[in-house]
Amino acid sequence: MKTKAPPPITHLAGRAALPLIEAYFEFNHLKQLYRQGWLRVGVPPERCESVGEHSLGVALLCLFLAESWFPEADAFKTVRIALLHDLGEARVGDITPHDGVSPGQKHVLERKAVEQILGKLPRGAEYLALWDEYEQGSSFEARLVRQVDRLEMGLQACVYEHQGMGDLSQFFASAQKVLETPQLQALFAELQALRPPTPGRGSAEPGA
Amino acid sequence: MKTKAPPPITHLAGRAALPLIEAYFEFNHLKQLYRQGWLRVGVPPERCESVGEHSLGVALLCLFLAESWFPEADAFKTVRIALLHDLGEARVGDITPHDGVSPGQKHVLERKAVEQILGKLPRGAEYLALWDEYEQGSSFEARLVRQVDRLEMGLQACVYEHQGMGDLSQFFASAQKVLETPQLQALFAELQALRPPTPGRGSAEPGA
Repeated sequence: MKTKAPPPITHLAGRAALPLIEAYFEFNHLKQLYRQGWLRVGVPPERCESVGEHSLGVALLCLFLAESWFPEADAFKTVRIALLHDLGEARVGDITPHDGVSPGQKHVLERKAVEQILGKLPRGAEYLALWDEYEQGSSFEARLVRQVDRLEMGLQACVYEHQGMGDLSQFFASAQKVLETPQLQALFAELQALRPPTPGRGSAEPGA
Repeated sequence: MKTKAPPPITHLAGRAALPLIEAYFEFNHLKQLYRQGWLRVGVPPERCESVGEHSLGVALLCLFLAESWFPEADAFKTVRIALLHDLGEARVGDITPHDGVSPGQKHVLERKAVEQILGKLPRGAEYLALWDEYEQGSSFEARLVRQVDRLEMGLQACVYEHQGMGDLSQFFASAQKVLETPQLQALFAELQALRPPTPGRGSAEPGA
């Protein structure tokens, strides 16, 4: 698992710290953890987004979408799930379908990680329940975040294609297959139309 | 202003795109924009956090703090302000006190940027009003986010010190002077105690 540095929490080993500070030293690692899928297709590390950057993108999109496009969603719940959904990766890394880890194993590893990271916070149990909801897709908000998680990947793929990072069709395909609401499907169709004419080469120049 | 690449929005120039996709291509630049203060003190670009990563840290801390430590805060409002507060930087960059731009000029530039980035979204005016609230510190939630914004910088400085990035006392000092609530002051005192014994050299080894 390629990262920028070892997990910051290791620097606190053996020292007493407030739970919130410990949680910070855990989730700070999301800034250091590359989204491994991009590295695998050749995005160079210095241009590869981190899991933290992806999470911010998902949270902002969830805020905008839940508040304006999906009035049936509890917007705050949607944003909370968005902020929490990748936290387990701070301990187990960004496991992709190419790592030979089964979805069941991945779930067990990540759940234990989230428990350890948030367990000591006053609302830790509540956050873990939201994370479970996301994993199980047991609420409208959880299913919305799961779709936006992939939509954000598609949007990032479109940016990378314009920046000449190659043909990223596989990421568009992976995003498309989880989009179930007509609104997000329509948005995705618009996104497809904005890909550069020859994705392998990108847009020749910004703004050209 | 050092960035990883030109703003992605330039790739959409002259093409019709949905407002949400345009907004994404704008705020995606937060992933590419280094927090310039770290570069200035010698953190190498490949280890320097982006504004997007910082924003995610602020949003997570705001969620945890507003929900558990500050019952008087509207937690969702706090998180919304946290997610929106740095958006102007997607257009104007991360202006630091060393850039010779007055606070008044900086405010005018960033406000115009936020207006352009969010203006076409259905709730654009509401988001701009929240951004104004942050800038003016005109609500408890806005003042809380401003403090957490600096607290996150102090926490990141502590991580960097452990990673051997030098003595970052100036960032601790800058954080400390805006912390006005006793809870955050106490948290900050704990953080100070967790700095490595010789910040210039970091912790010898993770976990040592």
